[in-house]
Amino acid sequence: MAVYTDVTAEELSRFLAGYAIGELLSYKGIAEGVENSNFLVHTSTGNFILTLYEKRVAEGDLPFFLGLMEHLAARGLNCPQPVKNKDGGILGRVAGRPAAMVTFLEGMWHRKPTAVHCAGVGEALANLHLDGADFPMTRPNALSVNAWRPLFEHAGARGDSVRPGLCNEIVAELDVLETSWPRGLPQGVIHADLFPDNVFFLGDTLSGLIDFYFACTDTLAYDVAICLNAWCFEPDHSYNVTKGRALLGGYNKVRPLDAGEREALPMLCRGAAMRFLLTRLVDWLAVPEGALVKPKDPLEYHRKLRFHQTVKSAADYGL
Amino acid sequence: MAVYTDVTAEELSRFLAGYAIGELLSYKGIAEGVENSNFLVHTSTGNFILTLYEKRVAEGDLPFFLGLMEHLAARGLNCPQPVKNKDGGILGRVAGRPAAMVTFLEGMWHRKPTAVHCAGVGEALANLHLDGADFPMTRPNALSVNAWRPLFEHAGARGDSVRPGLCNEIVAELDVLETSWPRGLPQGVIHADLFPDNVFFLGDTLSGLIDFYFACTDTLAYDVAICLNAWCFEPDHSYNVTKGRALLGGYNKVRPLDAGEREALPMLCRGAAMRFLLTRLVDWLAVPEGALVKPKDPLEYHRKLRFHQTVKSAADYGL
Repeated sequence: MAVYTDVTAEELSRFLAGYAIGELLSYKGIAEGVENSNFLVHTSTGNFILTLYEKRVAEGDLPFFLGLMEHLAARGLNCPQPVKNKDGGILGRVAGRPAAMVTFLEGMWHRKPTAVHCAGVGEALANLHLDGADFPMTRPNALSVNAWRPLFEHAGARGDSVRPGLCNEIVAELDVLETSWPRGLPQGVIHADLFPDNVFFLGDTLSGLIDFYFACTDTLAYDVAICLNAWCFEPDHSYNVTKGRALLGGYNKVRPLDAGEREALPMLCRGAAMRFLLTRLVDWLAVPEGALVKPKDPLEYHRKLRFHQTVKSAADYGL
Repeated sequence: MAVYTDVTAEELSRFLAGYAIGELLSYKGIAEGVENSNFLVHTSTGNFILTLYEKRVAEGDLPFFLGLMEHLAARGLNCPQPVKNKDGGILGRVAGRPAAMVTFLEGMWHRKPTAVHCAGVGEALANLHLDGADFPMTRPNALSVNAWRPLFEHAGARGDSVRPGLCNEIVAELDVLETSWPRGLPQGVIHADLFPDNVFFLGDTLSGLIDFYFACTDTLAYDVAICLNAWCFEPDHSYNVTKGRALLGGYNKVRPLDAGEREALPMLCRGAAMRFLLTRLVDWLAVPEGALVKPKDPLEYHRKLRFHQTVKSAADYGL
């Protein structure tokens, strides 16, 4: 939950005067997203989301993120569509921060997704990959294999304060990942953060994908690996192969994984687990003693990593 | 900003099945209120606010708060109206907490209210006092003069860590307030917390009052004193008599203050400043070192108190 920057009614009215979306009736800061400030804005023509981009999002990346949403929405993917202002632009400034208005998506995210939801997210991810194929911009993945060792060194030896022996385990795994990281697989636009809170459903029907602020150009099957990590483990961190089968089945129906991608899946899953283990570890160690906000548990991904290390082939995931 | 309790889509759907307000389309935790968890709920029939009452609100007080909103809304005051469920009840449970659905009010609150807004809030406050006159329930003010010394003793000598000499000043003022507190003035339902963030406007027209969770039965003119403190000081804590004149003028137009209330106004303003100084002081001292959430500055009310101590008569407020 997050509202980092306060927006006054006067500022928002001035900003909205640049758009043809009616008169401002109300707005509320919403507890959604951890990187930016989000407001649900109600005007005489409907609901919109206003996002103020905070310091963790590089301003130079915004044309990629917003352009991608525009591109995907134009191809029929249900995602927030940036609203053009009267000058045709989609990026402005509010309260000193870069800001954009996007369309509002109905739907709720599921805290406890079922196999039906996993099938839906697999299908939607494959559609995103296909729809993104002709998106002309590129953005390197700043959180892929080359970034992991520097990230780990940033956390340093303090990792062992979270779990004794954790540092040695991470170093050994980084050695494997750096040597064996799959290269030459099909590349394209990936979402890179398609967790349950970024996928909306109405009933069991997927109604939209949100939060494209980690999207980048990378190995498509790595996005599948991120989703297996995010969707197919139970609260006790055991892998649920029924959900895995549903997610992979949904994906394959739209964009069948090729032989190379299938073979690489276990290593891609280890990498995905390492990426979230490391970013959560850094966030965990950055929070001062006694703070009221508790970051997400890094050890959840340590346990997922251990599972992936035991996987023999993609069949173990339900493929 | 606050969302203390997470609500799942399943729980919310189950809860809404008890109401005749259509199908759930989306809901967002909103950064509003500091005592409770609030969600903006969109159904096929419109927008509503769902409030989950957290531990600081006594469950036994909820029938008073919700009954009052119902009473005031029925008399035409613009305030959230509790929605009746299919059994005719207005109080339920969500995620283990007492919960109620209320109608959504359009409008924005002003960070920098002008004299026009102050006139509007004075008028609305007087209407609230008149409309509340025949509300049959009562609730003592748990934060009036008798509560202040215990509150101060709870903070204890640590008050001087916020400002050297503060404790002695508070004790001296409490002696005055306890001896001279105005009694026998007209009583009734008061809002008791009508700060700018609880008053919505569309343009310069007041569109609604919210947050009745400090409402109680007390001296009506004390509510006016709270508003003078909350609305008529500048960011540098100087009193703006133009705003004071507008607020008191708006109030008097609807419910003229009698001679006793006018005479008591300076002492009531001192008491109101003391009440917010003390609750903010306790909150300030309760926050652990290094926490990310910063409570409101208690010294703002120390400076307001000093102003009120110099006031000779209600005329100094613009009456």
